[in-house]
Amino acid sequence: MKQNYRMTLQYEGTKYNGWQKQGNTPNTIQEKLEAILQKLDGAEVEVRGSGRTDAGVHAFGQVASFALEHPMEPREVMAYLNRYLPRDIAVVALSEAEPRFHARLNARGKTYRYRIHQGEIPDVFGRRYSWPCADELDLEAMRAAAAHMVGRQDFQSFCDVKNSKKSTVRRVDAIEIYQENTDIVLDFTGEGFLYHMVRIMTGTLAEVGARRLLPGQIPGILAAKDRKQAGPLAPACGLMLMEVTY
Amino acid sequence: MKQNYRMTLQYEGTKYNGWQKQGNTPNTIQEKLEAILQKLDGAEVEVRGSGRTDAGVHAFGQVASFALEHPMEPREVMAYLNRYLPRDIAVVALSEAEPRFHARLNARGKTYRYRIHQGEIPDVFGRRYSWPCADELDLEAMRAAAAHMVGRQDFQSFCDVKNSKKSTVRRVDAIEIYQENTDIVLDFTGEGFLYHMVRIMTGTLAEVGARRLLPGQIPGILAAKDRKQAGPLAPACGLMLMEVTY
Repeated sequence: MKQNYRMTLQYEGTKYNGWQKQGNTPNTIQEKLEAILQKLDGAEVEVRGSGRTDAGVHAFGQVASFALEHPMEPREVMAYLNRYLPRDIAVVALSEAEPRFHARLNARGKTYRYRIHQGEIPDVFGRRYSWPCADELDLEAMRAAAAHMVGRQDFQSFCDVKNSKKSTVRRVDAIEIYQENTDIVLDFTGEGFLYHMVRIMTGTLAEVGARRLLPGQIPGILAAKDRKQAGPLAPACGLMLMEVTY
Repeated sequence: MKQNYRMTLQYEGTKYNGWQKQGNTPNTIQEKLEAILQKLDGAEVEVRGSGRTDAGVHAFGQVASFALEHPMEPREVMAYLNRYLPRDIAVVALSEAEPRFHARLNARGKTYRYRIHQGEIPDVFGRRYSWPCADELDLEAMRAAAAHMVGRQDFQSFCDVKNSKKSTVRRVDAIEIYQENTDIVLDFTGEGFLYHMVRIMTGTLAEVGARRLLPGQIPGILAAKDRKQAGPLAPACGLMLMEVTY
Protein backbone atom coordinates (compact mmCIF):
# COMPACT_ATOMS: atom_id res chain seq x y z
CA MET A 1 0.00 0.00 0.00
CA LYS A 2 1.11 3.52 -0.73
CA GLN A 3 2.42 5.70 2.10
CA ASN A 4 0.88 9.14 2.37
CA TYR A 5 2.93 12.21 3.40
CA ARG A 6 2.29 15.79 4.39
CA MET A 7 4.86 18.55 3.90
CA THR A 8 5.23 22.27 4.57
CA LEU A 9 6.92 24.34 1.88
CA GLN A 10 8.47 27.76 1.51
CA TYR A 11 9.04 29.38 -1.85
CA GLU A 12 9.83 32.65 -3.49
CA GLY A 13 7.31 32.73 -6.32
CA THR A 14 9.03 35.42 -8.43
CA LYS A 15 10.29 33.10 -11.13
CA TYR A 16 7.37 30.64 -11.23
CA ASN A 17 4.10 30.44 -13.07
CA GLY A 18 2.37 29.75 -9.81
CA TRP A 19 1.74 26.54 -7.89
CA GLN A 20 -0.28 24.50 -10.31
CA LYS A 21 0.57 22.63 -13.47
CA GLN A 22 -2.01 23.73 -16.00
CA GLY A 23 -1.94 22.10 -19.39
CA ASN A 24 1.21 23.30 -21.08
CA THR A 25 2.14 26.07 -18.63
CA PRO A 26 5.75 25.26 -17.78
CA ASN A 27 7.71 26.17 -14.67
CA THR A 28 5.28 25.61 -11.81
CA ILE A 29 6.16 24.71 -8.23
CA GLN A 30 4.00 21.57 -8.28
CA GLU A 31 5.84 20.34 -11.38
CA LYS A 32 9.29 20.84 -9.74
CA LEU A 33 8.21 18.78 -6.71
CA GLU A 34 6.58 16.02 -8.76
CA ALA A 35 9.62 15.59 -11.01
CA ILE A 36 11.91 15.05 -8.01
CA LEU A 37 9.51 12.71 -6.19
CA GLN A 38 9.02 10.69 -9.34
CA LYS A 39 12.79 10.24 -9.59
CA LEU A 40 12.84 9.10 -5.96
CA ASP A 41 9.86 6.75 -6.13
CA GLY A 42 10.23 5.43 -9.66
CA ALA A 43 6.50 5.96 -10.19
CA GLU A 44 4.34 8.91 -11.08
CA VAL A 45 3.64 11.04 -7.99
CA GLU A 46 0.86 13.60 -7.67
CA VAL A 47 1.53 16.45 -5.27
CA ARG A 48 -1.62 18.15 -3.97
CA GLY A 49 -1.26 21.65 -2.58
CA SER A 50 -3.65 23.22 -0.07
CA GLY A 51 -4.55 25.55 -2.91
CA ARG A 52 -3.05 27.27 -5.90
CA THR A 53 -0.86 30.29 -5.48
CA ASP A 54 -0.77 32.56 -8.54
CA ALA A 55 2.29 33.38 -10.61
CA GLY A 56 4.66 35.50 -8.54
CA VAL A 57 2.99 34.78 -5.18
CA HIS A 58 5.19 33.48 -2.36
CA ALA A 59 4.66 30.93 0.40
CA PHE A 60 5.98 30.86 3.95
CA GLY A 61 3.86 27.84 4.89
CA GLN A 62 2.23 26.13 1.92
CA VAL A 63 1.08 22.58 2.76
CA ALA A 64 1.01 19.71 0.28
CA SER A 65 0.33 15.98 0.37
CA PHE A 66 1.54 13.09 -1.79
CA ALA A 67 1.84 9.32 -1.65
CA LEU A 68 4.80 7.08 -2.50
CA GLU A 69 4.67 3.51 -3.83
CA HIS A 70 7.88 2.75 -1.97
CA PRO A 71 7.67 4.13 1.58
CA MET A 72 10.73 5.89 2.91
CA GLU A 73 11.64 7.65 6.15
CA PRO A 74 10.20 11.20 6.21
CA ARG A 75 13.59 12.76 6.91
CA GLU A 76 15.07 10.92 3.91
CA VAL A 77 12.30 12.16 1.62
CA MET A 78 12.77 15.70 2.95
CA ALA A 79 16.55 15.62 2.51
CA TYR A 80 16.18 14.25 -1.02
CA LEU A 81 13.75 17.01 -1.99
CA ASN A 82 15.91 19.77 -0.50
CA ARG A 83 18.96 18.39 -2.29
CA TYR A 84 17.34 18.61 -5.72
CA LEU A 85 14.95 21.55 -5.39
CA PRO A 86 16.06 24.93 -6.75
CA ARG A 87 17.18 27.36 -4.04
CA ASP A 88 13.93 29.34 -4.14
CA ILE A 89 11.86 26.34 -2.95
CA ALA A 90 12.43 24.44 0.32
CA VAL A 91 10.67 21.75 2.33
CA VAL A 92 10.68 22.92 5.96
CA ALA A 93 8.71 20.01 7.47
CA LEU A 94 7.65 16.57 6.27
CA SER A 95 5.86 13.76 8.09
CA GLU A 96 3.83 10.62 7.44
CA ALA A 97 0.10 11.27 7.12
CA GLU A 98 -3.10 9.23 7.39
CA PRO A 99 -4.02 7.53 4.09
CA ARG A 100 -7.02 9.83 3.68
CA PHE A 101 -5.19 13.10 4.36
CA HIS A 102 -5.53 15.48 1.41
CA ALA A 103 -3.88 18.92 1.66
CA ARG A 104 -6.65 20.72 -0.19
CA LEU A 105 -9.79 18.85 0.88
CA ASN A 106 -8.85 18.79 4.58
CA ALA A 107 -7.72 22.42 4.86
CA ARG A 108 -9.85 24.30 7.41
CA GLY A 109 -8.36 27.75 7.15
CA LYS A 110 -5.64 29.88 5.61
CA THR A 111 -3.75 33.02 6.42
CA TYR A 112 -2.36 35.24 3.68
CA ARG A 113 -0.12 38.24 4.28
CA TYR A 114 0.03 41.20 1.94
CA ARG A 115 2.89 43.68 2.33
CA ILE A 116 2.72 47.27 1.06
CA HIS A 117 5.88 49.35 1.06
CA GLN A 118 5.27 53.02 1.83
CA GLY A 119 7.39 56.06 1.18
CA GLU A 120 9.69 57.49 -1.43
CA ILE A 121 12.73 55.37 -0.60
CA PRO A 122 12.76 52.08 -2.54
CA ASP A 123 13.10 48.98 -0.36
CA VAL A 124 16.17 47.19 -1.70
CA PHE A 125 15.98 44.13 0.58
CA GLY A 126 12.20 43.73 0.64
CA ARG A 127 11.50 44.59 -2.98
CA ARG A 128 10.69 41.03 -4.05
CA TYR A 129 8.11 40.70 -1.26
CA SER A 130 6.23 43.97 -1.24
CA TRP A 131 4.21 46.33 -3.39
CA PRO A 132 5.69 49.83 -3.45
CA CYS A 133 2.70 52.14 -3.06
CA ALA A 134 3.23 55.86 -3.65
CA ASP A 135 0.04 56.96 -1.83
CA GLU A 136 0.22 57.72 1.86
CA LEU A 137 -2.31 55.29 3.30
CA ASP A 138 -4.72 56.00 6.15
CA LEU A 139 -4.58 52.90 8.37
CA GLU A 140 -7.69 53.76 10.37
CA ALA A 141 -9.80 54.11 7.22
CA MET A 142 -8.42 50.79 5.92
CA ARG A 143 -9.32 49.06 9.20
CA ALA A 144 -12.85 50.49 9.10
CA ALA A 145 -13.26 49.23 5.52
CA ALA A 146 -11.79 45.82 6.36
CA ALA A 147 -14.33 45.37 9.16
CA HIS A 148 -17.05 45.26 6.48
CA MET A 149 -15.27 42.41 4.71
CA VAL A 150 -15.20 40.09 7.74
CA GLY A 151 -17.87 37.40 8.09
CA ARG A 152 -19.63 34.91 5.87
CA GLN A 153 -20.59 36.77 2.72
CA ASP A 154 -20.79 36.57 -1.03
CA PHE A 155 -17.46 37.82 -2.36
CA GLN A 156 -18.37 37.78 -6.04
CA SER A 157 -17.30 41.45 -6.34
CA PHE A 158 -13.91 40.46 -4.95
CA CYS A 159 -12.95 37.70 -7.33
CA ASP A 160 -12.05 37.20 -10.95
CA VAL A 161 -14.51 34.41 -11.65
CA LYS A 162 -13.19 31.41 -13.47
CA ASN A 163 -16.28 29.27 -13.07
CA SER A 164 -19.47 31.26 -12.63
CA LYS A 165 -21.45 28.24 -11.46
CA LYS A 166 -19.49 27.77 -8.22
CA SER A 167 -20.47 29.50 -5.01
CA THR A 168 -18.65 32.73 -4.24
CA VAL A 169 -19.72 32.70 -0.59
CA ARG A 170 -16.75 32.54 1.81
CA ARG A 171 -16.10 33.17 5.49
CA VAL A 172 -13.39 35.72 6.30
CA ASP A 173 -12.44 35.41 9.98
CA ALA A 174 -10.12 38.36 10.44
CA ILE A 175 -8.26 41.08 8.60
CA GLU A 176 -5.50 42.64 10.67
CA ILE A 177 -3.77 45.75 9.36
CA TYR A 178 -0.63 47.13 11.00
CA GLN A 179 2.50 49.14 10.40
CA GLU A 180 5.89 47.39 10.39
CA ASN A 181 8.73 49.87 9.90
CA THR A 182 7.95 51.48 6.54
CA ASP A 183 5.56 48.68 5.50
CA ILE A 184 1.84 48.29 5.95
CA VAL A 185 1.00 44.66 6.52
CA LEU A 186 -2.44 43.09 5.95
CA ASP A 187 -3.11 39.64 7.40
CA PHE A 188 -6.19 37.88 6.01
CA THR A 189 -7.50 34.77 7.76
CA GLY A 190 -10.44 32.75 6.49
CA GLU A 191 -11.75 29.34 5.57
CA GLY A 192 -10.56 29.85 2.01
CA PHE A 193 -10.28 32.52 -0.63
CA LEU A 194 -11.55 32.84 -4.19
CA TYR A 195 -9.38 33.41 -7.25
CA HIS A 196 -7.56 36.78 -6.80
CA MET A 197 -9.72 37.52 -3.73
CA VAL A 198 -6.93 38.61 -1.33
CA ARG A 199 -5.30 40.79 -3.97
CA ILE A 200 -8.60 42.49 -4.92
CA MET A 201 -9.43 43.05 -1.23
CA THR A 202 -5.95 44.58 -0.82
CA GLY A 203 -6.32 46.75 -3.94
CA THR A 204 -9.69 47.95 -2.64
CA LEU A 205 -8.35 48.63 0.88
CA ALA A 206 -5.47 50.59 -0.66
CA GLU A 207 -8.04 52.74 -2.51
CA VAL A 208 -9.71 53.41 0.84
CA GLY A 209 -6.30 54.16 2.42
CA ALA A 210 -5.60 56.66 -0.36
CA ARG A 211 -9.03 58.25 0.28
CA ARG A 212 -10.35 57.50 -3.19
CA LEU A 213 -13.02 55.28 -1.66
CA LEU A 214 -14.83 55.49 1.69
CA PRO A 215 -15.04 52.63 4.23
CA GLY A 216 -18.81 52.96 4.10
CA GLN A 217 -18.84 52.07 0.40
CA ILE A 218 -17.69 48.49 1.03
CA PRO A 219 -21.14 47.04 1.90
CA GLY A 220 -22.48 48.43 -1.39
CA ILE A 221 -19.59 46.93 -3.35
CA LEU A 222 -20.25 43.53 -1.75
CA ALA A 223 -23.98 43.77 -2.44
CA ALA A 224 -23.40 44.66 -6.11
CA LYS A 225 -21.83 41.24 -6.82
CA ASP A 226 -19.90 42.94 -9.58
CA ARG A 227 -16.11 42.76 -9.91
CA LYS A 228 -16.03 46.18 -11.55
CA GLN A 229 -17.27 47.85 -8.35
CA ALA A 230 -14.23 46.74 -6.33
CA GLY A 231 -10.72 48.19 -6.51
CA PRO A 232 -7.79 47.06 -8.66
CA LEU A 233 -5.89 43.78 -8.36
CA ALA A 234 -2.84 44.37 -6.15
CA PRO A 235 0.41 42.96 -7.63
CA ALA A 236 1.33 39.32 -6.94
CA CYS A 237 4.77 40.07 -5.48
CA GLY A 238 3.31 41.51 -2.23
CA LEU A 239 1.38 38.34 -1.37
CA MET A 240 2.56 35.43 0.77
CA LEU A 241 0.62 32.34 1.88
CA MET A 242 1.58 32.24 5.56
CA GLU A 243 -0.22 29.27 7.07
CA VAL A 244 -2.78 26.55 6.37
CA THR A 245 -4.70 25.04 9.27
CA TYR A 246 -6.26 21.56 9.43
CA MET B 1 31.92 76.61 -6.63
CA LYS B 2 30.92 72.97 -6.57
CA GLN B 3 28.45 71.77 -3.94
CA ASN B 4 29.53 68.72 -1.97
CA TYR B 5 27.02 66.03 -0.91
CA ARG B 6 26.95 63.02 1.38
CA MET B 7 24.62 60.08 0.83
CA THR B 8 23.76 56.76 2.47
CA LEU B 9 23.16 53.81 0.18
CA GLN B 10 21.64 50.36 0.37
CA TYR B 11 22.36 47.70 -2.20
CA GLU B 12 22.08 44.02 -2.86
CA GLY B 13 25.51 43.20 -4.24
CA THR B 14 24.58 39.85 -5.85
CA LYS B 15 24.68 41.05 -9.45
CA TYR B 16 27.54 43.55 -9.16
CA ASN B 17 31.28 43.38 -9.51
CA GLY B 18 31.60 45.22 -6.23
CA TRP B 19 31.63 48.90 -5.40
CA GLN B 20 34.58 50.17 -7.33
CA LYS B 21 35.19 50.84 -10.99
CA GLN B 22 38.47 49.17 -11.77
CA GLY B 23 39.89 49.59 -15.24
CA ASN B 24 37.62 47.66 -17.54
CA THR B 25 35.56 45.81 -14.91
CA PRO B 26 31.99 46.59 -15.88
CA ASN B 27 28.92 46.62 -13.69
CA THR B 28 30.04 48.24 -10.47
CA ILE B 29 27.86 50.21 -8.05
CA GLN B 30 30.09 53.30 -8.25
CA GLU B 31 29.72 53.33 -12.04
CA LYS B 32 25.88 53.15 -11.86
CA LEU B 33 25.79 56.14 -9.52
CA GLU B 34 28.28 58.19 -11.52
CA ALA B 35 26.44 57.65 -14.80
CA ILE B 36 23.18 58.97 -13.33
CA LEU B 37 24.79 61.94 -11.58
CA GLN B 38 26.64 62.86 -14.74
CA LYS B 39 23.35 62.93 -16.61
CA LEU B 40 21.91 65.17 -13.88
CA ASP B 41 24.86 67.56 -13.62
CA GLY B 42 26.03 67.59 -17.23
CA ALA B 43 29.61 67.21 -16.01
CA GLU B 44 31.74 64.28 -14.94
CA VAL B 45 31.02 63.33 -11.31
CA GLU B 46 33.26 61.23 -9.10
CA VAL B 47 31.47 59.28 -6.37
CA ARG B 48 33.71 58.34 -3.44
CA GLY B 49 32.61 55.47 -1.24
CA SER B 50 33.67 54.97 2.38
CA GLY B 51 35.47 51.93 1.07
CA ARG B 52 35.17 49.23 -1.54
CA THR B 53 32.81 46.35 -1.07
CA ASP B 54 33.78 43.21 -2.98
CA ALA B 55 31.76 41.54 -5.71
CA GLY B 56 28.61 40.04 -4.18
CA VAL B 57 28.85 41.93 -0.87
CA HIS B 58 25.78 43.93 0.23
CA ALA B 59 25.36 47.27 1.98
CA PHE B 60 22.73 48.41 4.45
CA GLY B 61 24.51 51.70 5.12
CA GLN B 62 27.31 52.48 2.68
CA VAL B 63 28.27 56.17 2.69
CA ALA B 64 29.53 58.07 -0.34
CA SER B 65 30.37 61.66 -1.22
CA PHE B 66 30.32 63.59 -4.49
CA ALA B 67 30.24 67.17 -5.73
CA LEU B 68 28.04 68.79 -8.38
CA GLU B 69 28.93 71.74 -10.64
CA HIS B 70 25.29 72.82 -10.58
CA PRO B 71 23.96 72.70 -7.01
CA MET B 72 20.50 71.24 -6.52
CA GLU B 73 18.27 70.60 -3.52
CA PRO B 74 19.33 67.37 -1.74
CA ARG B 75 15.83 65.88 -1.98
CA GLU B 76 15.79 66.53 -5.73
CA VAL B 77 19.16 64.80 -6.18
CA MET B 78 17.96 61.87 -4.07
CA ALA B 79 14.68 61.53 -5.99
CA TYR B 80 16.53 61.69 -9.31
CA LEU B 81 18.95 58.96 -8.26
CA ASN B 82 16.20 56.70 -6.94
CA ARG B 83 14.21 57.18 -10.15
CA TYR B 84 17.05 55.96 -12.37
CA LEU B 85 18.90 53.49 -10.16
CA PRO B 86 18.20 49.77 -10.67
CA ARG B 87 15.93 48.29 -7.99
CA ASP B 88 18.83 46.62 -6.15
CA ILE B 89 20.44 50.00 -5.28
CA ALA B 90 18.74 52.82 -3.34
CA VAL B 91 19.74 56.12 -1.78
CA VAL B 92 18.20 56.22 1.71
CA ALA B 93 19.58 59.60 2.83
CA LEU B 94 21.28 62.51 1.10
CA SER B 95 22.38 65.89 2.45
CA GLU B 96 24.71 68.78 1.67
CA ALA B 97 28.20 68.32 3.10
CA GLU B 98 31.15 70.57 3.95
CA PRO B 99 33.43 71.16 0.95
CA ARG B 100 36.17 69.08 2.57
CA PHE B 101 34.00 66.07 3.45
CA HIS B 102 35.34 62.88 1.85
CA ALA B 103 33.49 59.61 2.53
CA ARG B 104 36.65 57.50 2.66
CA LEU B 105 39.21 59.84 4.21
CA ASN B 106 36.87 61.05 6.99
CA ALA B 107 35.47 57.64 7.96
CA ARG B 108 36.27 56.87 11.61
CA GLY B 109 34.77 53.42 11.92
CA LYS B 110 32.77 50.70 10.21
CA THR B 111 30.47 47.87 11.17
CA TYR B 112 30.16 44.79 9.00
CA ARG B 113 27.66 42.00 9.60
CA TYR B 114 28.26 38.43 8.50
CA ARG B 115 25.31 36.02 8.52
CA ILE B 116 25.74 32.24 8.66
CA HIS B 117 22.68 30.04 8.09
CA GLN B 118 22.68 26.88 10.19
CA GLY B 119 20.77 23.66 9.78
CA GLU B 120 19.62 21.29 7.08
CA ILE B 121 16.65 23.35 5.89
CA PRO B 122 17.62 25.80 3.14
CA ASP B 123 16.68 29.43 3.85
CA VAL B 124 14.54 30.45 0.87
CA PHE B 125 14.01 34.08 1.91
CA GLY B 126 17.47 34.75 3.35
CA ARG B 127 19.50 32.81 0.82
CA ARG B 128 20.93 35.87 -0.94
CA TYR B 129 22.19 37.30 2.37
CA SER B 130 23.68 34.34 4.23
CA TRP B 131 26.22 31.57 3.96
CA PRO B 132 24.63 28.13 4.47
CA CYS B 133 27.04 26.29 6.73
CA ALA B 134 26.55 22.56 7.25
CA ASP B 135 28.66 22.34 10.43
CA GLU B 136 26.97 22.83 13.77
CA LEU B 137 28.88 25.77 15.21
CA ASP B 138 29.89 26.22 18.85
CA LEU B 139 29.08 29.86 19.66
CA GLU B 140 31.06 29.91 22.91
CA ALA B 141 34.21 28.71 21.18
CA MET B 142 33.71 31.30 18.43
CA ARG B 143 33.33 34.06 21.02
CA ALA B 144 36.51 32.96 22.82
CA ALA B 145 38.41 32.98 19.51
CA ALA B 146 36.97 36.37 18.52
CA ALA B 147 38.19 37.91 21.79
CA HIS B 148 41.76 37.32 20.55
CA MET B 149 41.03 39.31 17.39
CA VAL B 150 39.92 42.47 19.19
CA GLY B 151 42.38 45.32 19.69
CA ARG B 152 45.07 47.08 17.67
CA GLN B 153 47.07 44.35 15.97
CA ASP B 154 48.79 43.33 12.78
CA PHE B 155 46.18 41.47 10.72
CA GLN B 156 48.51 40.39 7.92
CA SER B 157 47.37 36.75 8.43
CA PHE B 158 43.79 37.88 7.93
CA CYS B 159 44.06 39.64 4.61
CA ASP B 160 44.74 38.88 1.01
CA VAL B 161 47.47 41.43 0.47
CA LYS B 162 47.20 43.57 -2.60
CA ASN B 163 50.01 45.95 -1.70
CA SER B 164 52.60 44.45 0.60
CA LYS B 165 54.15 47.82 1.41
CA LYS B 166 51.10 49.18 3.23
CA SER B 167 50.60 48.67 6.95
CA THR B 168 48.39 45.75 7.92
CA VAL B 169 47.88 47.04 11.46
CA ARG B 170 44.21 47.76 12.27
CA ARG B 171 42.12 48.32 15.38
CA VAL B 172 39.15 46.00 15.82
CA ASP B 173 36.83 47.42 18.48
CA ALA B 174 34.31 44.62 18.90
CA ILE B 175 33.17 41.31 17.49
CA GLU B 176 29.71 40.33 18.65
CA ILE B 177 28.44 36.84 17.88
CA TYR B 178 24.82 35.86 18.46
CA GLN B 179 22.05 33.55 17.36
CA GLU B 180 19.08 34.96 15.44
CA ASN B 181 16.50 32.25 14.69
CA THR B 182 18.47 29.71 12.66
CA ASP B 183 21.25 32.15 11.80
CA ILE B 184 24.51 32.92 13.53
CA VAL B 185 25.30 36.60 13.16
CA LEU B 186 28.77 38.13 13.54
CA ASP B 187 29.06 41.93 13.92
CA PHE B 188 32.54 43.34 13.38
CA THR B 189 33.25 46.95 14.38
CA GLY B 190 36.59 48.64 13.83
CA GLU B 191 38.39 51.65 12.43
CA GLY B 192 38.71 49.92 9.09
CA PHE B 193 39.31 46.51 7.60
CA LEU B 194 41.89 45.13 5.15
CA TYR B 195 41.07 43.43 1.85
CA HIS B 196 39.00 40.29 2.62
CA MET B 197 39.68 40.75 6.36
CA VAL B 198 36.11 40.30 7.64
CA ARG B 199 35.52 37.27 5.44
CA ILE B 200 38.80 35.60 6.49
CA MET B 201 38.04 36.32 10.17
CA THR B 202 34.59 34.77 9.62
CA GLY B 203 36.03 31.75 7.82
CA THR B 204 38.50 31.28 10.68
CA LEU B 205 35.83 31.69 13.37
CA ALA B 206 33.67 29.12 11.56
CA GLU B 207 36.61 26.68 11.70
CA VAL B 208 36.75 27.26 15.46
CA GLY B 209 32.96 26.84 15.69
CA ALA B 210 33.24 23.52 13.85
CA ARG B 211 36.02 22.48 16.28
CA ARG B 212 38.66 22.14 13.59
CA LEU B 213 40.64 24.94 15.26
CA LEU B 214 40.93 25.97 18.92
CA PRO B 215 40.32 29.50 20.23
CA GLY B 216 43.81 29.41 21.76
CA GLN B 217 45.35 29.06 18.29
CA ILE B 218 44.29 32.56 17.20
CA PRO B 219 47.19 34.45 18.83
CA GLY B 220 49.66 32.16 17.02
CA ILE B 221 47.90 32.72 13.70
CA LEU B 222 48.08 36.50 14.22
CA ALA B 223 51.76 36.32 15.19
CA ALA B 224 52.65 34.23 12.12
CA LYS B 225 51.71 37.12 9.76
CA ASP B 226 50.96 34.47 7.19
CA ARG B 227 47.63 34.27 5.34
CA LYS B 228 47.99 30.48 5.01
CA GLN B 229 47.72 30.05 8.81
CA ALA B 230 44.21 31.53 8.93
CA GLY B 231 40.97 29.87 7.84
CA PRO B 232 39.25 30.02 4.47
CA LEU B 233 37.62 33.06 2.89
CA ALA B 234 33.90 33.00 3.75
CA PRO B 235 31.61 33.62 0.72
CA ALA B 236 30.76 37.20 -0.25
CA CYS B 237 26.98 36.73 -0.11
CA GLY B 238 26.92 36.53 3.72
CA LEU B 239 28.55 39.94 4.19
CA MET B 240 26.81 43.30 4.60
CA LEU B 241 28.35 46.72 5.32
CA MET B 242 26.02 47.97 8.05
CA GLU B 243 27.28 51.37 9.09
CA VAL B 244 30.06 53.88 8.61
CA THR B 245 30.77 56.40 11.39
CA TYR B 246 32.35 59.86 10.99
